[in-house]
Amino acid sequence: MEKVVIIGIGLIGGSFAKGIRRLYPAAKITGLDTNETHLDQAMALRLIDEKANGDTLSDADTILVSIPVDAMVTELPKILEQVNEDCLVIDAGSTKALVCETISEHPKRRNFLACHPIAGTEFSGPEASFDGLYEGKTNIICEVEKTAFKLQERALDLFQKLGMRIRYMNPGAHDKHIAYVSHLSHISSFMLGKTVIEKERNERDIFDMAGSGFESTVRLAKSSPDMWTPIFEQNKENVIETLKEYIQNLETFKKMMEEGDFEGIYNEMNNTNRIKQILEGIPLTKTLD
Amino acid sequence: MEKVVIIGIGLIGGSFAKGIRRLYPAAKITGLDTNETHLDQAMALRLIDEKANGDTLSDADTILVSIPVDAMVTELPKILEQVNEDCLVIDAGSTKALVCETISEHPKRRNFLACHPIAGTEFSGPEASFDGLYEGKTNIICEVEKTAFKLQERALDLFQKLGMRIRYMNPGAHDKHIAYVSHLSHISSFMLGKTVIEKERNERDIFDMAGSGFESTVRLAKSSPDMWTPIFEQNKENVIETLKEYIQNLETFKKMMEEGDFEGIYNEMNNTNRIKQILEGIPLTKTLD
Repeated sequence: MEKVVIIGIGLIGGSFAKGIRRLYPAAKITGLDTNETHLDQAMALRLIDEKANGDTLSDADTILVSIPVDAMVTELPKILEQVNEDCLVIDAGSTKALVCETISEHPKRRNFLACHPIAGTEFSGPEASFDGLYEGKTNIICEVEKTAFKLQERALDLFQKLGMRIRYMNPGAHDKHIAYVSHLSHISSFMLGKTVIEKERNERDIFDMAGSGFESTVRLAKSSPDMWTPIFEQNKENVIETLKEYIQNLETFKKMMEEGDFEGIYNEMNNTNRIKQILEGIPLTKTLD
Repeated sequence: MEKVVIIGIGLIGGSFAKGIRRLYPAAKITGLDTNETHLDQAMALRLIDEKANGDTLSDADTILVSIPVDAMVTELPKILEQVNEDCLVIDAGSTKALVCETISEHPKRRNFLACHPIAGTEFSGPEASFDGLYEGKTNIICEVEKTAFKLQERALDLFQKLGMRIRYMNPGAHDKHIAYVSHLSHISSFMLGKTVIEKERNERDIFDMAGSGFESTVRLAKSSPDMWTPIFEQNKENVIETLKEYIQNLETFKKMMEEGDFEGIYNEMNNTNRIKQILEGIPLTKTLD
């Protein structure tokens, strides 16, 4: 780990850089980003040692590509073309099916390891990055068998040093399940925020009535549309399916309310209280809240 | 503040007791609860000095009634009948219209101050209580003019010492707006939890894929059905209205997804990002998260 390149130096890339700095003090970290302001901030914050130049990619031994998933499918093939045969290229995209399909026949396919670190906050940009973002978090790896063995080994060693728990899934299963445990949460939060903002448009002081419960529930509505729009687009079918089921459950709850079936309302909530035990099974995520 | 009685010694009543202990070390705190286990825990935790006996209510100078809102409308009139004319009785219910209507003609109406402290967590019971729960939180007071002046004064002095911000509203406006900033959040969270649990029933390890975003969004689904069912029942009309608007917004989002209108999806999220500035206007609620 001597020449590291981070393509897309925001919350994910920047936090990765801070981990590299701690684990490999001698490593030279180069940044590449279409957003000049982010690059300058990354330099000022010492996340990176230099901005990329012509030879950056061909010299690199490790490259993290942490850019929106629409840019990922157009840029990753070009990035792979430029890397040397010992270079490990990992991504951090929230969708995995399209990117894996896109580079499936790429001559440098074995240089790439498809990853989704389940780590982040509602904030974005290099100034939101922090060391320890990946500590105790799950990293989902897809199609590990398509990556060169020595590069798999190097990646797993790095993830282990970063404190990550590894899970292996196929891209289709990843996209299906992540729609439930991540993508749907973002939509429910955005639409909750929209509903309240619209209603209280002319009564801003009403938000004085909001407590930490509301804050917790709409937290994800602060998320970046630039990041999330392409995620929803790439995972369209799965997300629509989760939305249908969510809306159906809300309709059922509303119908019980209208019919005055409060025993049913009680049971709905009582059955869902199981989420308490389930969440206790999620290690360390609380550290982010 | 010498003889304080707390009726319903859970998270709200217990945290109130801890504040009283700090502010009025000489005060004797008596507990009353239908749940004997909670009473014993409250004694063991030193939240209360003794359990209530026959003369407790007539001797008290301050009474907090923190019980589910269905019990509130049946018990509050009986409680008021027993108090002496200098006794301040405050409640902490999440709905205000029915309770205010119920005791509007009560001979002891002027002993009662209708309150809704916007404070709490997803946990309940005396063991969940903590000093500082009310620090920096909003306390909504309804129909203040119907409370005896000297009792208003005593209550406001106490709330100020507890660090609370006071807002005055009429009961109808309270119930309408709280449906948006609190009750709807709970339903969206419960139904999100239900949707994911149902889908992943046979794949518990899928929750390894859940991150802090999911945890934050379903946090309220841990809430107590015993507390929330009567709240939804008493605020039925307002809650149904918020649910209609929320479901409509989700349907619109789903339709955009189905039609591939991702510019529309982007705009939906971008417009709702304003919630960031709005939440910054909510003082100190972060202390609870």
